[in-house]
Amino acid sequence: MYYVGLDVGGTFVKGGIIDETGKILIKDSIPTGVGRPHSEIIKDWANFYLKLLADAGLSRAEVSGVGIGIPGTIDDETGVVAYANNFGWRQIPIRQEFSKWCDVEIHMGNDANCAALGETKFGAGKGYNNTVLFTLGTGVGAGIVIDGKLLLGNNSAGAEMGHMSIMMDGELCTCGRRGCIEAYASATALIRDTRRAIEKNPDTMMREVPLDEVNGKTCFDYARLGDKTAQEVVANYQRYLAEAIIDAVNIFRPEIVMIGGGVSYQGDYLLEPIRRMVDKYSYGGDINPRVVIQPATLGNDAGFIGAAALLMLN
Amino acid sequence: MYYVGLDVGGTFVKGGIIDETGKILIKDSIPTGVGRPHSEIIKDWANFYLKLLADAGLSRAEVSGVGIGIPGTIDDETGVVAYANNFGWRQIPIRQEFSKWCDVEIHMGNDANCAALGETKFGAGKGYNNTVLFTLGTGVGAGIVIDGKLLLGNNSAGAEMGHMSIMMDGELCTCGRRGCIEAYASATALIRDTRRAIEKNPDTMMREVPLDEVNGKTCFDYARLGDKTAQEVVANYQRYLAEAIIDAVNIFRPEIVMIGGGVSYQGDYLLEPIRRMVDKYSYGGDINPRVVIQPATLGNDAGFIGAAALLMLN
Repeated sequence: MYYVGLDVGGTFVKGGIIDETGKILIKDSIPTGVGRPHSEIIKDWANFYLKLLADAGLSRAEVSGVGIGIPGTIDDETGVVAYANNFGWRQIPIRQEFSKWCDVEIHMGNDANCAALGETKFGAGKGYNNTVLFTLGTGVGAGIVIDGKLLLGNNSAGAEMGHMSIMMDGELCTCGRRGCIEAYASATALIRDTRRAIEKNPDTMMREVPLDEVNGKTCFDYARLGDKTAQEVVANYQRYLAEAIIDAVNIFRPEIVMIGGGVSYQGDYLLEPIRRMVDKYSYGGDINPRVVIQPATLGNDAGFIGAAALLMLN
Repeated sequence: MYYVGLDVGGTFVKGGIIDETGKILIKDSIPTGVGRPHSEIIKDWANFYLKLLADAGLSRAEVSGVGIGIPGTIDDETGVVAYANNFGWRQIPIRQEFSKWCDVEIHMGNDANCAALGETKFGAGKGYNNTVLFTLGTGVGAGIVIDGKLLLGNNSAGAEMGHMSIMMDGELCTCGRRGCIEAYASATALIRDTRRAIEKNPDTMMREVPLDEVNGKTCFDYARLGDKTAQEVVANYQRYLAEAIIDAVNIFRPEIVMIGGGVSYQGDYLLEPIRRMVDKYSYGGDINPRVVIQPATLGNDAGFIGAAALLMLN
């Protein structure tokens, strides 16, 4: 049996077909075309699904349906997107619309949750049943797997761990609250902090980078070269991220915490000091089993792989 | 069928028998007698169990076993307490010891988790399936119920939401970390902050209370009388507690958050400003269903009632 997953983003819909071991048979993407009526957008998903099947040379009987990951508040039971900010959607009946074009089993989930499920079943979290994934990008996405199942929360509106506060009255977050992890540990926040450090420290080597070209790698590149200011930015970022991870450890006591997004490519240079902080400051740290902290491994495929994996849970 | 619950504390073991509706048939307590060998302590529990049965006039066939709540890291599967700080216990085989004296079905859980289960099944959370309980006492205990089941975490070491940080580099917590909710929202923290406010403000009416007689009610009593300093202490405490509740809402999106412990007797005077903050700052606050925030209702009975309720889950 094969499984189709679609990962709907603001710009592209990524999609692919995997087998029961998570092996990718085929993957592709189409433009999302936000701004059009939802019926047209969803019709494209159905056609994309059929195209993936055709390109892989699979019949409908050989695939178990389609899993769809969407950024927003998704109710898989009713098949409705309650709210998807990027699309301006409220109460959109996805399953009903998709079924107009293609009569298959459909399961849906929040995109960050899907990524966590994908990484848990087939990526860095393979072999673990209790995992947390933080994806550090424009925002901070989070997904939590408990006993092999996604934590959804009532109305599927939970698992928003990017919006735990680590600093009361701190930096303003896009959600309107202050001090959220997203406002400290996202790539956006890291870039903000790198720019601030450049402006404040005339002697940093990072001055050779124009402020509008600073990205999430800048501080790491210069820290590795020995630049003190860059090292401070990195050290602070590590402390922010450690706060988030220790919170997750104290609440869920997962077997592994996985870190996704571009920043995670820094690997042990990023994670080793964080592991030490987590060991030292997590609750009952010396008694409980050590929590593994590793980069996610599926990259941009995590979303559609996890969406496809929704079909394996149901 | 009837259910026996024991709630083991550092000083007393509270116990009782309930029916399937949570109605208490009988309740009692015995001294814990910490410091003695664990075999003696646990033998007392077995005798206490038998005494409760005898006092209620019930035969063994009429009760479904015993549920035991213990402050620590408890593995119900193996029947072992991995760690209980107050008792200096590590790897104590509770089920095995108890069974020496009394051959009954035994289930065990962390005491804060038991209280959450009790409040959810038979207290303020009755009728809800997704709940969070914060118990504000010497520390901050927390319990989380998801789809009617306790969140335990790997090795049953999770759900330590009293040890989420709300203030990086903030007040030192007993756990060794800084900024934990426990270091801001426990009764201990409230008393500390009240004393500090008294020392700092020569004109507060609270000066008439000797510093060593300040308790968790002091600031509320004087705030209600119009004392500005006391009102500030209360307002700050409400903000700390709101931070914790918003975190819990964003992560779990429960239907209800319940507040237990002595401070919760302040009722709406405490909770109404917190409800407004939670409505305003929780993620997707205007889209998602409103989270109810209410005082717990079972008081000191929550622990043994919830311990007994462990038997209903199994």
